[in-house]
Amino acid sequence: MALALVLGARGQGRCWPNPSVGCVIVRDGRVVGRGWTQEGGRPHAETMALAQAGEAARGATAYVTLEPCAHHGATPPCAEALVAAGVSRVVAALEDSDPRVSGRGFALLEGAGIKVTTGICSEAAEVAHRGFFLRNELGRPHVTLKLATSLDGRIATATGESKWITGPEARRAVHAMRARCDAVMIGAGTARADDPSLTVRGLGPMGQPVRIVVSRRADVPLMGKLARTARDVPVWLCHGEDAAHEFTTAWEGLGARLIPVPVVGGQIDPEALLQALGRVGLTSIFCEGGGALAASLLHADLVDEFVGFSAGLAIGAEGVPSIGVLGLSRLAEAGRFDLVESRAYGPDLMHRWRARRA
Amino acid sequence: MALALVLGARGQGRCWPNPSVGCVIVRDGRVVGRGWTQEGGRPHAETMALAQAGEAARGATAYVTLEPCAHHGATPPCAEALVAAGVSRVVAALEDSDPRVSGRGFALLEGAGIKVTTGICSEAAEVAHRGFFLRNELGRPHVTLKLATSLDGRIATATGESKWITGPEARRAVHAMRARCDAVMIGAGTARADDPSLTVRGLGPMGQPVRIVVSRRADVPLMGKLARTARDVPVWLCHGEDAAHEFTTAWEGLGARLIPVPVVGGQIDPEALLQALGRVGLTSIFCEGGGALAASLLHADLVDEFVGFSAGLAIGAEGVPSIGVLGLSRLAEAGRFDLVESRAYGPDLMHRWRARRA
Repeated sequence: MALALVLGARGQGRCWPNPSVGCVIVRDGRVVGRGWTQEGGRPHAETMALAQAGEAARGATAYVTLEPCAHHGATPPCAEALVAAGVSRVVAALEDSDPRVSGRGFALLEGAGIKVTTGICSEAAEVAHRGFFLRNELGRPHVTLKLATSLDGRIATATGESKWITGPEARRAVHAMRARCDAVMIGAGTARADDPSLTVRGLGPMGQPVRIVVSRRADVPLMGKLARTARDVPVWLCHGEDAAHEFTTAWEGLGARLIPVPVVGGQIDPEALLQALGRVGLTSIFCEGGGALAASLLHADLVDEFVGFSAGLAIGAEGVPSIGVLGLSRLAEAGRFDLVESRAYGPDLMHRWRARRA
Repeated sequence: MALALVLGARGQGRCWPNPSVGCVIVRDGRVVGRGWTQEGGRPHAETMALAQAGEAARGATAYVTLEPCAHHGATPPCAEALVAAGVSRVVAALEDSDPRVSGRGFALLEGAGIKVTTGICSEAAEVAHRGFFLRNELGRPHVTLKLATSLDGRIATATGESKWITGPEARRAVHAMRARCDAVMIGAGTARADDPSLTVRGLGPMGQPVRIVVSRRADVPLMGKLARTARDVPVWLCHGEDAAHEFTTAWEGLGARLIPVPVVGGQIDPEALLQALGRVGLTSIFCEGGGALAASLLHADLVDEFVGFSAGLAIGAEGVPSIGVLGLSRLAEAGRFDLVESRAYGPDLMHRWRARRA
């Protein structure tokens, strides 16, 4: 199952809206088939592993990180494929929360006389499929908020200098984190201040996550890196429903996909924003600030994971804060995060936290 | 030597201006004497260990974390005591940088036919004696800056609420850190906002570090916890030379020690402050903020170690910043710190950094 989880991780960020599943087929103690959900979501992990195993699948055990699908979608159901291949046992990490599958995949297998075991490595599988589950259950993608700051929580000096607070090792780790998410997201202020490209670089050839800019007015510079490369790597502009036509049309002309979102209290409504992104299929988003977008997501309790990179320097109170105004009136109101891990990347400290939810 | 270092740590914070030395005497593979610098700096570690060893010291090896003293101060020199006791070998971690000792202790021992080995566990001993060395070399104590903040580097909400950002485990760790320093130091703003007692609590009976308040005007509330307890645990008020007589007299009346410090640019000069504290004998200071004092020390490159406690919550840009205005014009100007360690204390993340110096 550990191998199946590793294989499943290969598809992360590249098979949305499908879950990135891993599958290993073992016959007489030998691995005879390995598979993972392919780019765009098809073929499924089981299909790939069964094809590799061929006749060796007969009487074998299939390890899958998620309940095999039982519905006829773009591909025939994997549960049926496992039955047809003559597999004698299926070990699954988790039941699928997709209402079209939930329990039916297992029922179909058991109905065909296949022994089914579940709950193996379920915790790791829950983390691997958390975005897929969240979208099924709440309609929105999983949100990781990443902020690279000084020891006093600043993301830039008063004059806007932010290159580089953290070192190359931390930046490389960020690229790897981007690659595992369906989309990278920033606010308009960061797009203007940093002119980032938001692509995954330095990790070999691979599919790129969607690049999302959130801008109520849609007035993101038309000459920046994102604008210039919108035809090579997708750029989605999430703008307020009241954005000026001239900007939205210009971005459409550059090749960006436009996603209108309701405005509440003069700001893009963060819940509506994530629902819109869930509707178009995203299961995981890596938000890289800036302070206003971070504050908006935190205030609405929409940050599922927080990743901090702390550099060993102080910028001072005149620097740009990592998180904007939250409007807390009491400490007890603040949403709490639980520490998952901390480790050094070169000179910087990475710390990862998960939202504590009731 | 590892045991000698552990013994030496017992005296930390309680034997200034003397170094907190540890000594172990070993004869035929058996520990026959153990000693550490006692409260107030006397007796020295060697004296205590030799007394314990008695006749067994003859022909034994003495392990000491610092070169034995060779000058006649308040006590006769330890090097002579080791010779008199008939020790045949001395293993020392480091040479003493005190100009009255530096190399002379070893020379005296070797002159008496004792074999001397140095440089054993020297790195750990350098950390243990860093405050003593710094005071010898630069005239000032070692400064640790500790800040307990939210993930976005805030030490309180906009309304001043700061109890409790971090949990009981982190606060207990802070008490242990206080206990290992000669003094705990805060700025006047923190004294006013938090009314802290700054004592070491919950660790059993022990000597208390000096409590220092830095206040240019000396206008620290006369009814707070520090004022009420100034006769039980020392309070030193470091004030500007231009502070009003009414305040300094009132604090003197409460039992506080007054230390006047030159004012530069409307602020207490941080270098002069530390020089003054070095002159009265302090070798290590644990500074707990607030933002203005932290900024003043950082700006003058006077922070030797930074200890952060990060709690898993965000307070937002309207909260109180952990570090005040630094006046950096470029990122490259910021002093850098190297990560020493990070670990969890209950729900909070502790991270320790050491100033990178040329």
